[in-house]
Amino acid sequence: MTKRALGVCYYPEHWPEDQWAADAVRMAETGLTWVRIGEFAWSRLEPRPGDLRFDWLDRAIDTLGGAGLKVVLGTPTATPPRWMLDKHPDMLAVDAQGHPRKFGSRRHYCFSHPGYLEECRRIVTLLAERYGANPHVQAWQTDNEYGCHDTTLSFSKAARAAFRDWCARRYQSVDALNRAWGNVFWSMEYDSFDQLDLPNLTVTEPNPAHVLAFRRFSSDQVVRFNRAQAEILRAHTDAPLIHNYMGRVLDFDHFDVGADLDIASWDSYPIGFLSDRLEASPDHKARFLRQGDPDCQAFHHDLYRAVGRGRLWVMEQQPGPVNWAPFNPAPLPGMARLWAWEAFAHGAEAVCYFRWRQAPFAQEQQHAGLLRPDSEAAPALAEAAQVARGLRDLPDTAPAPAPIALIFDYASAWAWTAQPQGADFDYFHLVFAAYRAARRSGLNIDILPAETADLSKYAVVLAPGLMTISDTLKAALAGFDGQALIGPRSGLKTPEMSIAVPLGPALPGLDCTVSLVESLPPGTQVALETGEHFVHWFEHLEGGAEVALHTNDGRPAIMRRDGLHYMAGWPDDASFALRVHTLCRRAGLVPLDPPGDLRIRDTASHRFVFNYGPEPVDYDGATIPAAGVHWSAL
Amino acid sequence: MTKRALGVCYYPEHWPEDQWAADAVRMAETGLTWVRIGEFAWSRLEPRPGDLRFDWLDRAIDTLGGAGLKVVLGTPTATPPRWMLDKHPDMLAVDAQGHPRKFGSRRHYCFSHPGYLEECRRIVTLLAERYGANPHVQAWQTDNEYGCHDTTLSFSKAARAAFRDWCARRYQSVDALNRAWGNVFWSMEYDSFDQLDLPNLTVTEPNPAHVLAFRRFSSDQVVRFNRAQAEILRAHTDAPLIHNYMGRVLDFDHFDVGADLDIASWDSYPIGFLSDRLEASPDHKARFLRQGDPDCQAFHHDLYRAVGRGRLWVMEQQPGPVNWAPFNPAPLPGMARLWAWEAFAHGAEAVCYFRWRQAPFAQEQQHAGLLRPDSEAAPALAEAAQVARGLRDLPDTAPAPAPIALIFDYASAWAWTAQPQGADFDYFHLVFAAYRAARRSGLNIDILPAETADLSKYAVVLAPGLMTISDTLKAALAGFDGQALIGPRSGLKTPEMSIAVPLGPALPGLDCTVSLVESLPPGTQVALETGEHFVHWFEHLEGGAEVALHTNDGRPAIMRRDGLHYMAGWPDDASFALRVHTLCRRAGLVPLDPPGDLRIRDTASHRFVFNYGPEPVDYDGATIPAAGVHWSAL
Amino acid sequence: MTKRALGVCYYPEHWPEDQWAADAVRMAETGLTWVRIGEFAWSRLEPRPGDLRFDWLDRAIDTLGGAGLKVVLGTPTATPPRWMLDKHPDMLAVDAQGHPRKFGSRRHYCFSHPGYLEECRRIVTLLAERYGANPHVQAWQTDNEYGCHDTTLSFSKAARAAFRDWCARRYQSVDALNRAWGNVFWSMEYDSFDQLDLPNLTVTEPNPAHVLAFRRFSSDQVVRFNRAQAEILRAHTDAPLIHNYMGRVLDFDHFDVGADLDIASWDSYPIGFLSDRLEASPDHKARFLRQGDPDCQAFHHDLYRAVGRGRLWVMEQQPGPVNWAPFNPAPLPGMARLWAWEAFAHGAEAVCYFRWRQAPFAQEQQHAGLLRPDSEAAPALAEAAQVARGLRDLPDTAPAPAPIALIFDYASAWAWTAQPQGADFDYFHLVFAAYRAARRSGLNIDILPAETADLSKYAVVLAPGLMTISDTLKAALAGFDGQALIGPRSGLKTPEMSIAVPLGPALPGLDCTVSLVESLPPGTQVALETGEHFVHWFEHLEGGAEVALHTNDGRPAIMRRDGLHYMAGWPDDASFALRVHTLCRRAGLVPLDPPGDLRIRDTASHRFVFNYGPEPVDYDGATIPAAGVHWSAL
Repeated sequence: MTKRALGVCYYPEHWPEDQWAADAVRMAETGLTWVRIGEFAWSRLEPRPGDLRFDWLDRAIDTLGGAGLKVVLGTPTATPPRWMLDKHPDMLAVDAQGHPRKFGSRRHYCFSHPGYLEECRRIVTLLAERYGANPHVQAWQTDNEYGCHDTTLSFSKAARAAFRDWCARRYQSVDALNRAWGNVFWSMEYDSFDQLDLPNLTVTEPNPAHVLAFRRFSSDQVVRFNRAQAEILRAHTDAPLIHNYMGRVLDFDHFDVGADLDIASWDSYPIGFLSDRLEASPDHKARFLRQGDPDCQAFHHDLYRAVGRGRLWVMEQQPGPVNWAPFNPAPLPGMARLWAWEAFAHGAEAVCYFRWRQAPFAQEQQHAGLLRPDSEAAPALAEAAQVARGLRDLPDTAPAPAPIALIFDYASAWAWTAQPQGADFDYFHLVFAAYRAARRSGLNIDILPAETADLSKYAVVLAPGLMTISDTLKAALAGFDGQALIGPRSGLKTPEMSIAVPLGPALPGLDCTVSLVESLPPGTQVALETGEHFVHWFEHLEGGAEVALHTNDGRPAIMRRDGLHYMAGWPDDASFALRVHTLCRRAGLVPLDPPGDLRIRDTASHRFVFNYGPEPVDYDGATIPAAGVHWSAL
Repeated sequence: MTKRALGVCYYPEHWPEDQWAADAVRMAETGLTWVRIGEFAWSRLEPRPGDLRFDWLDRAIDTLGGAGLKVVLGTPTATPPRWMLDKHPDMLAVDAQGHPRKFGSRRHYCFSHPGYLEECRRIVTLLAERYGANPHVQAWQTDNEYGCHDTTLSFSKAARAAFRDWCARRYQSVDALNRAWGNVFWSMEYDSFDQLDLPNLTVTEPNPAHVLAFRRFSSDQVVRFNRAQAEILRAHTDAPLIHNYMGRVLDFDHFDVGADLDIASWDSYPIGFLSDRLEASPDHKARFLRQGDPDCQAFHHDLYRAVGRGRLWVMEQQPGPVNWAPFNPAPLPGMARLWAWEAFAHGAEAVCYFRWRQAPFAQEQQHAGLLRPDSEAAPALAEAAQVARGLRDLPDTAPAPAPIALIFDYASAWAWTAQPQGADFDYFHLVFAAYRAARRSGLNIDILPAETADLSKYAVVLAPGLMTISDTLKAALAGFDGQALIGPRSGLKTPEMSIAVPLGPALPGLDCTVSLVESLPPGTQVALETGEHFVHWFEHLEGGAEVALHTNDGRPAIMRRDGLHYMAGWPDDASFALRVHTLCRRAGLVPLDPPGDLRIRDTASHRFVFNYGPEPVDYDGATIPAAGVHWSAL
Repeated sequence: MTKRALGVCYYPEHWPEDQWAADAVRMAETGLTWVRIGEFAWSRLEPRPGDLRFDWLDRAIDTLGGAGLKVVLGTPTATPPRWMLDKHPDMLAVDAQGHPRKFGSRRHYCFSHPGYLEECRRIVTLLAERYGANPHVQAWQTDNEYGCHDTTLSFSKAARAAFRDWCARRYQSVDALNRAWGNVFWSMEYDSFDQLDLPNLTVTEPNPAHVLAFRRFSSDQVVRFNRAQAEILRAHTDAPLIHNYMGRVLDFDHFDVGADLDIASWDSYPIGFLSDRLEASPDHKARFLRQGDPDCQAFHHDLYRAVGRGRLWVMEQQPGPVNWAPFNPAPLPGMARLWAWEAFAHGAEAVCYFRWRQAPFAQEQQHAGLLRPDSEAAPALAEAAQVARGLRDLPDTAPAPAPIALIFDYASAWAWTAQPQGADFDYFHLVFAAYRAARRSGLNIDILPAETADLSKYAVVLAPGLMTISDTLKAALAGFDGQALIGPRSGLKTPEMSIAVPLGPALPGLDCTVSLVESLPPGTQVALETGEHFVHWFEHLEGGAEVALHTNDGRPAIMRRDGLHYMAGWPDDASFALRVHTLCRRAGLVPLDPPGDLRIRDTASHRFVFNYGPEPVDYDGATIPAAGVHWSAL
């Protein structure tokens, strides 16, 4: 049983100190419990090198804690001050065009720069020593939104040197690297690791194996950077360690970073994401303009619950219009409440609105808060208070089992970015399509990493787009007695980004081989005998396994052995939903198939129904208004 | 009363000297009065450093003047010769990606380079000394089309140094700058002005206050550059000083440059602008393909009449197809005549066609002239002669009063570029939409700068999209007894690009506050109770003022106190016209609402009617053919 | 009479040596005759500078030759190994943005780098000495796909130095260069050749004469580079010399390169080209998704037959999906056969599939071969064997005369890239439109270079878009008694990219002048009296010649003297076909006008009919299936 709680992000350094106490009281009165602070404050903590000014932070924590709030303290390493450049002129990240990513916003550091890493260790140590045992500081956040603004990849000299070392460690000899990457092709062989460069600015595409190695390296650098902070904090505090992942960021392996932390949190901007970061039809975007995509939040909740090994927060929750998406409309009244309850239904322990008061200055001045810049209540304040009151009745959460599992794998995202083969082949798009299809059923979904060894809890497993199927997962599938739908484009590669020979997917006991793959331009589809369609991608299957579904012209679309299916294409949305529905029925599950734009999530004790549509919907004896949440005991 | 006259642009250096006299005679015979020369001739005036060759220019001026033509002499500073780079290798402007903007076309100088500025002072002094008292030189042009080809902003080291100085002067202390920009946000604080960089190549968007300061600085550098020339010329000549602004360029404050000059001229390429630089539907672009947008020229005439404090020229008038737009069709027969008369009706003293003879070589070889490259008459020559004959009957112009005023503010254009908040929020687009709406009435319009203190001449005032409403303007509005329509997005910011607190617009006596703003993607609109619609932008209003118009769902769309209105959104074209029409009626004006694609402009003595459509239109007892001009005494 | 033969591309260095012999036997069994090897193997021939390892190549050639195969040996200069950069750090090509084009793929050398050219001479000499007299090596290929990946143009220092020399040789004096380019315009005059820069990164467009000179220079550098290899090979072998041009590459003059070689071959990827490199409507692209454009292959066969002065090969033939186009579907069954027969019908002596076995690694791992990565047969293997069997019955080819000629000129492509005047004016698009129109007739077409002196073999000649009409061609046209259709945009420029004065086209005996040109945006057209339409481009004609066709509003659309026509616009596809049909009839030809998507090509002995459509078509008493080939003796 976990307690549910609300919180908020606050920047005492932005406001006169005489305002802090009133703010803190008002937060508490609103029903907020947590307050995150400090993650961008380095220039105030250390205005000049070595000139430490922690006194104001002491007082801020005291003030907030004194009002009964629990503090999440952020390390300020996402925003090195300007003087850092004088000490480390080459610490800036470098973009793929070779331009340094200059000071003047945030996240301008290169993860591979040794001098900056030392500076981070220093400031984190100072903070940990001072606040590690502070009773008000009940959680820590490392850095802020790793990878946001495309900051995982850096093409700096520091990154190049580190990449050479990384390759030397991974491959041990340059001959082994040449063989692993197939560098005999086009005479790309190296004589020494010192000849290795980063895979940018090549004449035509670089070797995808080179790209994938660089992506793995870049992810590892984030893990290393975060671990350095986590190790220091662990030595000084028993409070849980958290990072606030940015939704829709795939450039590093969140499971790997999460392994060093206690809780996974993410920053949820449903309307910003729909405008900026989701592929969807104009009609879909218009329908959900003020609600956000109805599955995007749930997907991330389920993903980060896995990253956090069961412990999930929303560290930043959109409360109103934001500033950074191409278009920034206001949420429908009720959405700031709906989003919070949806997070709780998916297991979140805390949901913190970003931010307390809208800052009238700088980059995010048009980003709404719970308060307006003039301290009047913004619309979301009342909704937050309403959620807080609801939490008095439903303070606890326990997870309900999920009958459906979906495999999510960061390396596959990198692989298909390195080698899309079809211009619109996007791993996230594919996995999210599978998630949408599964969620239409109304049944709970768990997201699992690719190294999952035990599938026995699940009735249905989906694994689209996996670059490789690990031996661990193959073993799990071999013993799995539910329904598994693998593919398309799953298990066809070696871990070093070559085509697997013998040809994949090589699923346990399934005599099915992909002999040829095709990518399909928009408007082209492969018709199936059932009236369904594949789009984007189609594979030619051969082998002796049972053909569970044919194309219109008689070729295999799905082959299977018992419950283990391999699917040769990317179904369009309706087809994907039908496929999952069929699997669920085969697995003995009873899909709920809620009407309209309702979405469902069960906890151990309650069924939550969310209406993402702009009209009321009748369901289960209740009329759920637009942006409405309905729950009932199970 | 001002004389109206025609002219032409001529390049004696492009043609054999023995052709000059015949050209001059033919110009005079065509009825041309003015001839502009010299503005790109530096490499012929000074082929090597210090090697001055003014003799040919002496003879060219004598020849042209001898034929009765009046010369506009241009300073050649827009085209520094190649040897200048040997003297000042770092004089090149630098683009936002950090690339030097190389020699090989024009305008390759950085406004902030001190060495180049000295070179300009030197050559202008030499020209002024030699020709300042020449009786044929009756006007001077400084440089050519400041800002054309995106040349206002430069990211060079010279610009960076000058920007630091500019900031030091403006803010006096770095603490003041940090506070003004809100640099505490994301730890962007500076310790000294020497740490300041230009706002390019940042990881994510730079601080909009930083951007706005850089835009202001960049504009000031243009002013400074132009002033340096104006001061020298003033000391040597009594002839009027002119700059030829390029239409649709907003990157520097034309009012500020114009304050140092006597006449504002602009370069009018109606068909090129429609193809390249105006937002419009494909249908609109197809309908006006060979005429140009029917309001674009009038807008610029009215704008530059304000910039010139009443004195307006068209220095370059498109005579046929140009070379530089994406597509370059020929004008409808008659348009070269219509455009000239339209300019005169709006107060132009002179209209000069660009250029006399089409050059068969180099970048603009496909740019039509009055003559073809083989010296035969191009279609526009006869139209120019026809205008010249018409000017015999209507040689004078006196302005008629304009009942409608529209505020135009360059800083607001920079502000919304720095912080669009909606991807399609464009200041020019908004103001031009207001201008179109007003011009549908057929009534005269004046354009006014944002610091206007006296509105008493006007019945209707429009002020959309003003970043700030100055105290001057507020005072004028407080005493204004006509109808004013302010907003959307007007008066919500401080001059340093923060949100104003208390929230704006803070209009005199109007209890109306913008509590929240929304940007709307294409296809989304806010319906009003009258069937009208807002697009792009919508603001939530609150306060006790009268609601003059509601949205369909009952929220305020316009609030007012007497004649002072604040409008919460961006009306679509039809709605905007209806709003202005309603205001005009309230103000006691009688809109003319001409049919079809007719446009109207009154002078003190005559009403001019222009048919921009491709079909004839009956109006006021006359049939006005396509591309036709009709005038009648008032 | 020429023998027809099949072949394949093979990379012994990619496979274990113990697999070579079996591969060779299987090739021979499939009916393949030729095998191309070696063109990317430099890092295996010389793993470190001077460390030569030719033994494996000796054995590979022996093995292949021993199985009865004839070897085409490629020089490996398209893929300099990594160590070359240590010797020549500045040998990399530089892109227009100034970025070096880094190691990590292929073609990273600058054609102008003297050190790299010497390295190429060295390795080619070594190969020529060793294998020039090898009886199995029966042809040589120089480098690989010059210009592929936009590698003709380089903006390096080496290129700049070479361009200065090239200009000095061409113009002799800088004054002559200034005059030729019209550099007086915008003060662009140079004092010495050392001041010349490459035409990139200018503020606005550079002088098109400057661009054209740079394009000519760049083409000449390719010719020089290739000639250096050809001269060495000639000294050591009697085998024919070949280069494999990449289809749709226009950046250098293939006629000029071809003049130093014996056979022109090209690399034919019909489905990749349709996806990536042809302008066509979505419907067209969807219809031919799995066949490729029905005219693109024929066009290139006819072009390269001219480049090879009658000797044509396809060095690389697509056998299945490729990896490099935006979308990569599989060919319809039968297409790998159809494409080969179509090449033979157009005179190809050999067609080599690329490649033998799909490589499971590196950039092209998703590129199909005749074998799958697991050595099983891919679909194209059986089709290749089927073609081989067919060749037993039809082993010889003799060209049939072509009644229609189309002029193709690389310099014109460069000219209109430098000065499109209309954003969608593309030389290839225009010439290909003319080719399509002519091919609708079903009659044979020859493609001719612009310097053609003898047209007497032809009944119909087409020459659209020629920058200049050379004196040679004018003389040929003067004596031509067939039907010639010149224009649009032909003969209006001088060779130095100025407008010709007197105005063009100046065709012999044709009193017709282009007085003005217009470019037309999409959706705009000029209607002709016959219901046809011009799109993209329209010229105003004047003169006393007969008007053969009018526009709807009575202006000349085509003027003529006897059979010599000048056409004022770019006809849409249907209009172009009607124009060519009309000309053919006038010339006494009988167009075949085959139905559906059939295409026809006659040899001296047989008529070949190809069905590019996805449905069967009845023709000439036979039903030709989708992707079917039908031939009958003439």
